[in-house]
Amino acid sequence: MSENNRIALGIDIGGTKISMACVQNGEIISQILTYNTPKSAKGILETVLNGTEALVSEFAPTSIGIATAGAVNRENTKVISSTGNLPNGYSDINLKEEIEKKFNTKTLLENDANAAAYAEFKVGAAKGQMNTITITLGTGVGGGIIVDGKLLRGKSGAAAEVGHIPLSWEKKRQCTCGDWDCWEAYASGTGYAITAREMASKIPLEYRSEFLKDKNVDKLTTHDIISGIKQGDEFCIKIHEAWLEFVLMGLISLTNVFDPESIVLSGGMAKFIDFDDLNKKLDKRCNITKTRIMNASAGNNAGIIGAAMLAIEKFSES
Amino acid sequence: MSENNRIALGIDIGGTKISMACVQNGEIISQILTYNTPKSAKGILETVLNGTEALVSEFAPTSIGIATAGAVNRENTKVISSTGNLPNGYSDINLKEEIEKKFNTKTLLENDANAAAYAEFKVGAAKGQMNTITITLGTGVGGGIIVDGKLLRGKSGAAAEVGHIPLSWEKKRQCTCGDWDCWEAYASGTGYAITAREMASKIPLEYRSEFLKDKNVDKLTTHDIISGIKQGDEFCIKIHEAWLEFVLMGLISLTNVFDPESIVLSGGMAKFIDFDDLNKKLDKRCNITKTRIMNASAGNNAGIIGAAMLAIEKFSES
Repeated sequence: MSENNRIALGIDIGGTKISMACVQNGEIISQILTYNTPKSAKGILETVLNGTEALVSEFAPTSIGIATAGAVNRENTKVISSTGNLPNGYSDINLKEEIEKKFNTKTLLENDANAAAYAEFKVGAAKGQMNTITITLGTGVGGGIIVDGKLLRGKSGAAAEVGHIPLSWEKKRQCTCGDWDCWEAYASGTGYAITAREMASKIPLEYRSEFLKDKNVDKLTTHDIISGIKQGDEFCIKIHEAWLEFVLMGLISLTNVFDPESIVLSGGMAKFIDFDDLNKKLDKRCNITKTRIMNASAGNNAGIIGAAMLAIEKFSES
Repeated sequence: MSENNRIALGIDIGGTKISMACVQNGEIISQILTYNTPKSAKGILETVLNGTEALVSEFAPTSIGIATAGAVNRENTKVISSTGNLPNGYSDINLKEEIEKKFNTKTLLENDANAAAYAEFKVGAAKGQMNTITITLGTGVGGGIIVDGKLLRGKSGAAAEVGHIPLSWEKKRQCTCGDWDCWEAYASGTGYAITAREMASKIPLEYRSEFLKDKNVDKLTTHDIISGIKQGDEFCIKIHEAWLEFVLMGLISLTNVFDPESIVLSGGMAKFIDFDDLNKKLDKRCNITKTRIMNASAGNNAGIIGAAMLAIEKFSES
C-alpha cells in the first residue's frame, strides 16, 4: 500500500480530554472517540487501550501516533517530562510498549504542540510551506517548528518550548516553569487575565469605567475583557493591546530566528486576534525578514491528524 | 580526491578587514592574506580577486567559500541585504560570478556568523555536536545555528538573526535595525557601553566611586568598566552583572527554543565572560532542558575555515 493510502490511528492525550480517530490521506475517516482524561496514570492507559481496541478492530490501522502533553524523547518512544496537567506517574507508563504488545501495531509518541504543527504543515494553514511555526495560545503557550519540512526536535526532543522565551529582565511575573517573565506568563489566556487584574487594580475606584465598576477586579477573566471590548470599553481595549504587544514580542523573536514562511496561531486565544491588524504590526517591527501570521485551519483535531501522519511517515520508511 | 583531502579557499569579508587562506581537513594550510576593507564596492571586488589569484595559483583549491557580513540568499549565490559596515553597492557586485569567471572555480557565499558557527561545529568547540549554536558577541550580536548537522537557513537565508530577539516591551533603547530593545542593543559591546553610561549618569556626582569620579560618564567604554572590575569597583561590577543578565536572556530563549547540546560564544565580548559562572546562572534559569555554554575555539579565522568547509561539502556533492 502506498504511504498515501495508509491508515493510522491518531490519539491526542491532553489534560482535560483524550480523543482518538483513524486518519487516511490527512483526513479523519472514523468516528472521533472522546473521553474525559482519567485522574490516574493507570486510568489513562486503560482508556487509551479500550479506545484503541474499538478503532483497531474496525479500521486495522498500519500504525499508531500519540500526541501527548509534555516533552517526548527524540526517538519518539516515551514521555520525558510530566506536565502539571497530567497525573503523577503518567510519564512512567510505557504507552508505546503496551499498545504495541496488545495490538501488534507500530506506535510513536509526539509532543502535542509538535503534532499540531505537523498537521498545519501537512494539511492545514501552512500546507506545503517548508519553514513554518505553529503556536498554540491557550492556557499556556506551546509551539511546534518545521525546519526544511521536518520537526525541530533538539538534542533530546525538548525543542520548541517557545513559551519560555523571556520577555523582560525585571522579574515581574513568575512563570509556572519557575523562571520569570516567560512569553507564556503573558501571552497565554492565563497571562491575559493576570494582566487585566494587575492593570485594573491600579485604577482607583472612582476612575473605573462603567464596565469595570460592577466587577471584582481580582477575578476578571479573559471573557470579561473580550465582552468589554465589544461594548467599546477603553480599559478593556487597553488590556487587549497590551496582550497583543506580548504576543508580538514572541513572534518577532521567532521571525528573526527562523525566517519562516508563516507562523500559524491556534488555541483558544487565537480567536481573539485580528490577523490583518497583527500582520501589519509585525511587519512594522521586523526589519530584517518578514513572515505571515495565519489562523490555524487543522482545528481541534490537529493533534490526532499530526500524530497519525507522523506515524504513517515514520513506519513506512522501514 | 576524497572530500577530506580537498583544498578550498576561504575568504572572510568584514567591515574592517578582508582575510583569506586555503583550508584542508579543517585547517589553514597557506599564509593568511589580510587587507583593510576598501571603502568602495569596486575596491572590495578588486581586493578579493587579487588575493584569490595569489592563493589559487599556489594551492589550486577545488572550490571557494566566502563568509560575508550581511544576509546571503538560501542558494548561497548572493548577498541579499547590505549592512551598515560595508560600502553602498556591495550587495550589487556579483562576487560568485566574477570569481567563477576569472578562476573557473566553484564559489559560494555564506553569512559570516553562519560560517563561524559551521567552523565551531566541524572543527571547533562544538565539534561533532549535531545541535549547536554559535553567538558572536562583538560590536553587534550575530548567530549561526546548527540543526541536526545543518545550518538553519530559513525561507530566504536570513535565519539566525538572533541579535533581534526583543528583551523588553518598554521601548527603552532603539536598535540599529529600527526596532526597540533587541538583544543586540544590550548584549553587544556597543550595548555594554550604553548601559554603563546610562547607569553612571543616574548616580549623583557626590555618590560616584573613586573610579568613576575622574571619568566623563558620557564617554565610558567597555574597557573602562573592565578595568574598573579589576580594581574591584562596585559600580563596574554592577554594570557587568546587568550585561550578563542581558546575555542570559537570549541564551535562555535559544536553549528553550532549540534544546541544543551547546551554545558557543565568540567575538570580542566573549573574553569578558566567566563561563563557569554563566553556566551556573543559565542552569538555574532553564527548567525544561539544559545546555552548555562554551568558549569558541576556531578563533579569528572561523569565518575562513567555515566558508571553505561549506564550499568543500557543497561542491563535492555534485
